[in-house]
Amino acid sequence: MAVKIVKAVRAMHRKADQMRRAGQRIALVPTMGDLHEGHLSLVRRARKVADRVVVSIFVNPLQFGPAEDFAAYPRDLARDLERLDPCGVHLAYLPEVKEIYPEDFATTVGVARLTEGLCGAHRPGHFEGVTTVVAKLFAAVKPHVAVFGQKDAQQTLVIQKMVRDLNLDVEILMAPTVREADGLAMSSRNAYLSPEERREAPSLYRALMLGKNMIAQGERRAPRVVAAMRDVIAPLCHAKIDYIEAVDAENLTPVAVLKNSVLLAVAVRFGKARLIDNAPVRVK
Amino acid sequence: MAVKIVKAVRAMHRKADQMRRAGQRIALVPTMGDLHEGHLSLVRRARKVADRVVVSIFVNPLQFGPAEDFAAYPRDLARDLERLDPCGVHLAYLPEVKEIYPEDFATTVGVARLTEGLCGAHRPGHFEGVTTVVAKLFAAVKPHVAVFGQKDAQQTLVIQKMVRDLNLDVEILMAPTVREADGLAMSSRNAYLSPEERREAPSLYRALMLGKNMIAQGERRAPRVVAAMRDVIAPLCHAKIDYIEAVDAENLTPVAVLKNSVLLAVAVRFGKARLIDNAPVRVK
Repeated sequence: MAVKIVKAVRAMHRKADQMRRAGQRIALVPTMGDLHEGHLSLVRRARKVADRVVVSIFVNPLQFGPAEDFAAYPRDLARDLERLDPCGVHLAYLPEVKEIYPEDFATTVGVARLTEGLCGAHRPGHFEGVTTVVAKLFAAVKPHVAVFGQKDAQQTLVIQKMVRDLNLDVEILMAPTVREADGLAMSSRNAYLSPEERREAPSLYRALMLGKNMIAQGERRAPRVVAAMRDVIAPLCHAKIDYIEAVDAENLTPVAVLKNSVLLAVAVRFGKARLIDNAPVRVK
Repeated sequence: MAVKIVKAVRAMHRKADQMRRAGQRIALVPTMGDLHEGHLSLVRRARKVADRVVVSIFVNPLQFGPAEDFAAYPRDLARDLERLDPCGVHLAYLPEVKEIYPEDFATTVGVARLTEGLCGAHRPGHFEGVTTVVAKLFAAVKPHVAVFGQKDAQQTLVIQKMVRDLNLDVEILMAPTVREADGLAMSSRNAYLSPEERREAPSLYRALMLGKNMIAQGERRAPRVVAAMRDVIAPLCHAKIDYIEAVDAENLTPVAVLKNSVLLAVAVRFGKARLIDNAPVRVK
């Protein structure tokens, strides 16, 4: 089965209406393309919870800062469609930038607080770009359920918040992070890594596992855990730390004493690649 | 037929799904209650274009400034429901403030530019409150079409812009302003007027008609038209002018030379009542 392609918003509206009138449950997997195993795991999760799976592919200029990698971001639509073909995806929604952001575009959807820390503090405007485009994708595709990745935990929480606050009738699912054999989280940005940077990149995962183990062994002082994680990454030749934090898993504010649900979260730059990763920890 | 009442967002979602699955076209008329002939004319318009009419009644705290009339705004739900009863309204959606704005509410929908002039310049945050709540009402009621009044022309244009920008599948209709016999536009805020203020209030309409006549008679200099309109209202004992403007009817920016589609727009305070009115003019 070849994946059906829809580009225009109006056509997507009509397709969504058709599916809904036929009583089909629609799942949306929003992506920026350059699909890897992480994305495909979201698609598999979507298939389990819906009758029809729509994958959107749209490199969203609004969520990139002026000095960021919008132009360089890897794009290979033919390969993406090939990868989706055997996955039981019913429809690829491929909107065009000029329809999504016409010249007089003037509307913003923003979420306060949850977007202030972690990546929000390092990428001004990023999450506003994310919530605005996801609101648009939801309006176009009319999904019953949408699947996001644990790797982008803050993004998923922000979208969950937007959905609740705007009374959108969309269920948000978070699927586990998919990793390379050495622990590096799958990401399109891994392609930016030089061989030396690639060798250092699994340090994010190693730091997270170290932090998790310290907590499992009884450490409750967040600064101690963060310092130990920092010691894993800071000495590396190519690593520039954006943040290493232990935050409350629900409101993402930094915690001093670890308790209940905690998120260990890291963002590290290796050359042109800014990599993020995180580990949710249930503190007993 | 008694109007069916829905209060909870989830219940509204399910009702909307039922109607849509049954192939019914849903029209929403969003109101803040205290229903008058203006509202009922929107309901009649809605009935003509849809199978099911939902009227929402919600006095939206987010669109009132701290010094404005949120607390004083007239509320009489029993009377509102009585008025809707003979109008063929199928459902009254009456959400509660604590569900619409829970304590941790953090999401905002905003429209730039169109909201900067006219009432936007005099009521900071007002239109952000409007677009946020209307986005929520649309998400809850899932209407195919929504009907707004020409009296709130800027509001209607801002919502139209939000709908287009966010790819919402909702058609926006604008219904003509309904007036008292002396020309005063129907408004819940007319109830604030003292007898003396009420006598002066039709001056908004008289000013608009004067402006319209000047243009019909060939005047193309906006400052002349605005000055003449001002001369109608400024001398009145109780009138305090917020603005009198001639703007482009599409982007609402002030114009010097009148051409194409123009909106004459006025906002005047009489005591506690802030009244607005406008007249669209097609310049030949």
